Amino acid sequence: MTTARKILQLDAPFAMHLGGHLQQMQIAYETWGQLDAERSNAILVFTGLSPSAHAASCEDDPSPGWWEPMLGPDKPLDAHRYLIICVNSLGSCFGSTGPASVNPDTGKPYQANFPVLAIEDIARSAHLVVEALAIETLYAVVGPSMGGMSALAYCMFYPDASERMLSISSAARSLPFATAIRSLQREMIRTDPDWRQGSYPPGEGPIKGMRMARKLGMISYRSPQEWVQRFGRERVPEERKTGDAFAIDFEIEAYLEAHASKFTGQFDANCYLYLSRAMDLFDVADHGGSVDAGLSRIKLRQALVVGVETDILFPLHQQGELAIGLESAGIETEFVRLSSLQGHDSFLVDMDRLRPVVAKFFA
Amino acid sequence: MTTARKILQLDAPFAMHLGGHLQQMQIAYETWGQLDAERSNAILVFTGLSPSAHAASCEDDPSPGWWEPMLGPDKPLDAHRYLIICVNSLGSCFGSTGPASVNPDTGKPYQANFPVLAIEDIARSAHLVVEALAIETLYAVVGPSMGGMSALAYCMFYPDASERMLSISSAARSLPFATAIRSLQREMIRTDPDWRQGSYPPGEGPIKGMRMARKLGMISYRSPQEWVQRFGRERVPEERKTGDAFAIDFEIEAYLEAHASKFTGQFDANCYLYLSRAMDLFDVADHGGSVDAGLSRIKLRQALVVGVETDILFPLHQQGELAIGLESAGIETEFVRLSSLQGHDSFLVDMDRLRPVVAKFFA
Repeated sequence: MTTARKILQLDAPFAMHLGGHLQQMQIAYETWGQLDAERSNAILVFTGLSPSAHAASCEDDPSPGWWEPMLGPDKPLDAHRYLIICVNSLGSCFGSTGPASVNPDTGKPYQANFPVLAIEDIARSAHLVVEALAIETLYAVVGPSMGGMSALAYCMFYPDASERMLSISSAARSLPFATAIRSLQREMIRTDPDWRQGSYPPGEGPIKGMRMARKLGMISYRSPQEWVQRFGRERVPEERKTGDAFAIDFEIEAYLEAHASKFTGQFDANCYLYLSRAMDLFDVADHGGSVDAGLSRIKLRQALVVGVETDILFPLHQQGELAIGLESAGIETEFVRLSSLQGHDSFLVDMDRLRPVVAKFFA
Repeated sequence: MTTARKILQLDAPFAMHLGGHLQQMQIAYETWGQLDAERSNAILVFTGLSPSAHAASCEDDPSPGWWEPMLGPDKPLDAHRYLIICVNSLGSCFGSTGPASVNPDTGKPYQANFPVLAIEDIARSAHLVVEALAIETLYAVVGPSMGGMSALAYCMFYPDASERMLSISSAARSLPFATAIRSLQREMIRTDPDWRQGSYPPGEGPIKGMRMARKLGMISYRSPQEWVQRFGRERVPEERKTGDAFAIDFEIEAYLEAHASKFTGQFDANCYLYLSRAMDLFDVADHGGSVDAGLSRIKLRQALVVGVETDILFPLHQQGELAIGLESAGIETEFVRLSSLQGHDSFLVDMDRLRPVVAKFFA
């Protein structure tokens, strides 16, 4: 397997936002395209909870990335025109330091001893990559979902570091419905006896808990409307039934099962817990006393806020709150509401609607 | 503890809708008020998934019932004017035969050997109570949530048995979003090692799984809007924190925890599994080829369909489907949309909005 992954390693200790330090912190990132002579065409992309830095294929790694239709030569995030940088979030498990990484102080994985992770840490560690690339001002910072929170934190910490921001299906803070869902996902994982208080052997872990957490994830990522159209009350064929009267009978159940199987083994359970909690903790209001005061710290030439009508996890009114707050901060802000059926996941799957919007912003 | 519980015991085997028989089936019920001379003033109330037949206090059992503000003397379901009958659903665990009951054939609890339960079984077993009381025609049949499904099944099986129907926050069939939530709740219970394939000792069982299922229940029973107003981003006081960084920090998490604790030990896990699946399986279209054809079997003088705008489990458009279908079947139907904030649970808690609507229907 080839990789396009680059690693930034920090020699100095990295001070975490809510306390604690990381020694020899690493941030994994990938890039597409070239910096122009003025070093003014770089775009920084933050990811949602689970993706790696591999947002799109490239020469060194031709496997499709998580945002393949959006990023690359002649795509809306055009690698012919921009240098695009995607970071694997601090706390994740695809090359960046996180709970699955070895703690240099002990020689053992951090696991549940990793310090509390904040979205602010993801933003600040990504900025080290930008600095290492000797980029003073980004053309834009981009983030869908959790990545949009990271983008907001980035723009609050470094008001002069970016000229534009694209926020997709994100929020200025978590509201209780989303926190409830994430809290229950974490309980599913922590209740699994194989979690072992976080001390499961590498490669093992709370598979049953992770499967259920992923299923609840899918329930919150898509929309009831989409599922009525896709599945209705369709039953699985007899040969695919498991004989368990309480499990797989309807197509929707088989769909969730397939997504759970796809996810399991890919993502470290402790990393999931830390990133999930980081989203609950994030609040723009922590940076000024109110959401509007926090947003007023941001300086940008332009912002685009995209929301989806069927999103139940990062609902449209939260996109509205963001757009109004940015506009009030004196930033030229556009707010686009997509009528996509696929809920929160629309940014990954409803490319027919999203691509033109993003392309126009970067045209 | 006094009880107002009455028991109907059936001597003949009860044939289940989807196969199998129950020997010596029992249905627990309670009544309020008196039959009039014409035996024409009886109202049959079906419950949601988890309540007992104790819908309201009475002389023999002064403890508050699950619908205390709605039912009793001078209440909207007025025990001065009507004989009100509430049944504990077949498959439940409050006096009616269910998976926790002893199978007379084996002398042991049915547990996972209980036959597949259908909403139709709940309807047909309740009709035996009505017959035993020598009531030929009910003044009305009433059901919120799952109880509304039971009421629909009742009216399809016995078109001449009731003159009116009140359906609250129910549906003609389960749609995939609700099925997904219930399927995951069942998985939480079945994945708990203490479930033991259903064979847990009486009084024990999958407590952790039931706690999580209840939490997901609450997420689906209330509404995001209500929680923003009630909890926002409030944190629990330091002294109530458990020291677990992934669990109780926000008030919404403490709220879910409290509801889980209240539920645990009250409800048998196997009963929960059977009743939950029965809701997934229910489809009015099974009684005629389409929802409208199924509803056209119903004969009533009047129907009232009540839905709640913030209900995500039995959404408003499903109430609309019901109301239109009943109207098309030639029934004088009123459709009331409540703007309650409390989602699916509004029928239990938003009495200021619901009581006048029900009172008017029974005036």
